[in-house]
Amino acid sequence: MKAPLELVEYRAKYYERVIKSALKAVGVDIGRLEFVLGSSYQLSKEYTMDRFKLEGITRIAVAKKAGAEVVKQTDDPTLGGLIYPLMQALDEQYLDVDAQFGGVDQRKIFTFAMENLPTIGYKVRAHLMNTMVPGLGEAAKMSASDADSKIDLLDDPKAVEKKLKKAKCVPKEVEGNGVIAFVEHVIFRALALKSGGTPKFVVERREEEPLVYESISKLKEDYAADILTPQLLKNALTVHLNELLKPIRDEFDASPDWQAVQSQAYPAEEGPVKVKKVKKEIDPARKAAALAARQNIVAKPDGHVEGKDAEKVTVGSSTEETLEKMKIASES
Amino acid sequence: MKAPLELVEYRAKYYERVIKSALKAVGVDIGRLEFVLGSSYQLSKEYTMDRFKLEGITRIAVAKKAGAEVVKQTDDPTLGGLIYPLMQALDEQYLDVDAQFGGVDQRKIFTFAMENLPTIGYKVRAHLMNTMVPGLGEAAKMSASDADSKIDLLDDPKAVEKKLKKAKCVPKEVEGNGVIAFVEHVIFRALALKSGGTPKFVVERREEEPLVYESISKLKEDYAADILTPQLLKNALTVHLNELLKPIRDEFDASPDWQAVQSQAYPAEEGPVKVKKVKKEIDPARKAAALAARQNIVAKPDGHVEGKDAEKVTVGSSTEETLEKMKIASES
Repeated sequence: MKAPLELVEYRAKYYERVIKSALKAVGVDIGRLEFVLGSSYQLSKEYTMDRFKLEGITRIAVAKKAGAEVVKQTDDPTLGGLIYPLMQALDEQYLDVDAQFGGVDQRKIFTFAMENLPTIGYKVRAHLMNTMVPGLGEAAKMSASDADSKIDLLDDPKAVEKKLKKAKCVPKEVEGNGVIAFVEHVIFRALALKSGGTPKFVVERREEEPLVYESISKLKEDYAADILTPQLLKNALTVHLNELLKPIRDEFDASPDWQAVQSQAYPAEEGPVKVKKVKKEIDPARKAAALAARQNIVAKPDGHVEGKDAEKVTVGSSTEETLEKMKIASES
Repeated sequence: MKAPLELVEYRAKYYERVIKSALKAVGVDIGRLEFVLGSSYQLSKEYTMDRFKLEGITRIAVAKKAGAEVVKQTDDPTLGGLIYPLMQALDEQYLDVDAQFGGVDQRKIFTFAMENLPTIGYKVRAHLMNTMVPGLGEAAKMSASDADSKIDLLDDPKAVEKKLKKAKCVPKEVEGNGVIAFVEHVIFRALALKSGGTPKFVVERREEEPLVYESISKLKEDYAADILTPQLLKNALTVHLNELLKPIRDEFDASPDWQAVQSQAYPAEEGPVKVKKVKKEIDPARKAAALAARQNIVAKPDGHVEGKDAEKVTVGSSTEETLEKMKIASES
């Protein structure tokens, strides 16, 4: 098998397909969405001079702190991880964006950008963050490095069913419950987007009338009271989630092009989920070296894809709606 | 006054003039000597990709250690100082040199280059080092940041006389004696180069015949026995040193062009010596930022100038002689 970073270019293409399909699945017009590879500008003289500037004013301790939640933490990190937050900050300028969007795990990097870009003459950007959905297992957040902790956008109905069956879901416990969090932050928002109004989360029951939730607080209340049991909740989530994923999966199944990209991006026999796990275990130093060896692509260690004009993608009529759409895109 | 780093381009020109003149003063043919500014290649895509590679494999602790004797040490250093040793290593490849030469304070950076260039596919270079001449005062080495610790190549006869009068020179103490070290590592070698054979260090005495030394060990012996007193040694050194500096000073006095470069490189009223002191006290972070602000020049924090094909400059007929000449160039 090739070193995972030789695959970065294909991964970027793969992510582009998945993200576009996911946005379309919740009704976002992607006509003005543009993907820009870091390698297209991060090797320019201007960018390099700006790196010198930022590197010259950034204390090691500050760079470490900025990357603490995003860069893989080891006892003996490389310079690569220190420079990562600086580049993510500079990217705002070179992508000419008005806003950067990410999970709250990006908070320290966003703060770093806000505090340091003005020092080298660039304006502060807006930063939009969503909450992190807890992992379905014991993980604090859904993680690509723990296949069972997360739903893959291309998981088929059986995989979704299996993962949710295994998911941790303590009866009557709402706090830290990954299944409820998923319903709240992904399903409710997707339903609201698709209906253009109030979400309707339907829980079918064998002998009784279905439970229908239009608010997450009522759902949590019923869960705490064990009216909505883990079994009922999981089954309902499986149905809604598979419905949400269906158009994405259908688009993939109908696209030989996308399938080809997938097999280039994840050439191992185990399929994407397992390969992703392997990828995350690679030493960042070796990743960077392998990356550099390609000489034609630069990307963030986590495979993060920059979306120029990302803030212009959404068609929401309000800031709230825009945020909702962005959250869906990020969390799903 | 402008920020010192806005002056880097002029400093580079100034150093080029001084170094060429010093080499000529000891009889080196500089016909094949070439000066290359870092900014002419350090902003290229290839160099930047190689920085990514090195940054990806270099542990923070290793980079810190590599720069420990060269990069200004602070409690809270910036990334700039960490990256410095990586760039000095890469410079060997991009300047296409066979060897790099420096004081023994460069040892850890040279070691870093030897250990890491092969990892990214480049060959190990030879490294030549000279001993450090102790400062004339209390400093462990001659330092641009302590004007009284060092002889400037453009110091006039009176300045040399004054500095040597003030120089620490404990009677009968040979070890750690900066004046004796200067005679040994600078004067004896320059005399040997100029005569093409054995040096002759003449110590004039008022009432007696002059003392004439052809070996440093005899000189040290006489100094330990107080036959050669600090007063006699200092006077003799003043004479020999001014003789050595005369052609450099003469060339400067006869060159309006060089004088113009000097006033651009050191615009302050205090003259070069004082300005150099100010320069060294500047926070490296601010230096790097100011440097970057120029957008058209990249140089080492210490104003170090790269000499492509430097190893081909000397005309010595043996390795030893070549080394001697290089030492003179570096130490004087």
